[in-house]
Amino acid sequence: MGRWEPNARERLAGAALELYAEHGFDKTTVAEIAQRAGLTERTFFRHFADKREVLFGGQEDFNRAFVAGVAAAPAGAAPLDAVAVALAAAPTVLPETRRPHARARALVIARDPALRERELIKLASLSSVIAAALRERGVAEPAASLTAEAGVAVFKVAFARWVAEPDPADTGDIADLAGLLRDALAELRAVMAGGTSG
Amino acid sequence: MGRWEPNARERLAGAALELYAEHGFDKTTVAEIAQRAGLTERTFFRHFADKREVLFGGQEDFNRAFVAGVAAAPAGAAPLDAVAVALAAAPTVLPETRRPHARARALVIARDPALRERELIKLASLSSVIAAALRERGVAEPAASLTAEAGVAVFKVAFARWVAEPDPADTGDIADLAGLLRDALAELRAVMAGGTSG
Repeated sequence: MGRWEPNARERLAGAALELYAEHGFDKTTVAEIAQRAGLTERTFFRHFADKREVLFGGQEDFNRAFVAGVAAAPAGAAPLDAVAVALAAAPTVLPETRRPHARARALVIARDPALRERELIKLASLSSVIAAALRERGVAEPAASLTAEAGVAVFKVAFARWVAEPDPADTGDIADLAGLLRDALAELRAVMAGGTSG
Repeated sequence: MGRWEPNARERLAGAALELYAEHGFDKTTVAEIAQRAGLTERTFFRHFADKREVLFGGQEDFNRAFVAGVAAAPAGAAPLDAVAVALAAAPTVLPETRRPHARARALVIARDPALRERELIKLASLSSVIAAALRERGVAEPAASLTAEAGVAVFKVAFARWVAEPDPADTGDIADLAGLLRDALAELRAVMAGGTSG
């Protein structure tokens, strides 16, 4: 109690994800998470407001990283290029070492309708802050909102592929998030130009 | 009781929207809605499962109209062109005569976080069914999901403008939903082609 616990936050998050996967999010208690991590409930609440924050904490940092990316784009960059700069910075927040955690988290969220709704709200909030950052750059509406929505669509599709279970038949290199984001952006550009017909 | 009430559904929906706007969604009861409409609670429940369905009923029909639009596009049409056909059909589900109702509904939803979440889920479900309809046409992933997300972004932005309070300073023609959808799609195409710089 009160003493410094090495990696307490990571141990708690790891224990929580294991338990959510084993028993479901609703059926897991904070007491069980603390016990699995070999820590106290008090330590849990020093790191997380509640069970859900294990999955959705860090939204502010996440949004801020995108906004910083949009703001950091060269002056005069087209709106989509500013969003592309922000997307290229996403792997600093979600490095390859986080993929196993992100994959476990995605499986837990996919199984729970309320958590899926929370994930949608998280992405809607990302779209809002990107649109605001574009308006800061002088981009007019509706271009700002449309570009932000396009950026979030690219992120959503690339992220879903990043956390998908690897296909055992796929013998090629495993794509990293940066590559998946570039692919999805290129694909959306092609689609919007009228390409990739069915 | 039991007898035919002319326009009962419309009267109930109108009364509900008035009360939601006056007292908030949470503070309005079905008894109050029925009373305002001059009908019984029993009649309310013949038309709506609950208070929320007044705002979110018709999702199936709405999704079906978009899916039918995608399916009706000419064989060989590019994915975005199939979605454009679906968008062009939206005003048949949301004709100009529905704008006052849609505007009142949007104001009620904007004031209530739980209703805003429900609206996001409605749009996510629209995106899923459009992506599925594109895959039916032979469009591969991730192009199908990206095109569907782009279509929903266009709808979302155009719809928000359609239901926005009219600007008294705007002396031009009031745009109808079909025109707003065409504008938003053209704007997204321009943005994705690298245009409309800030």
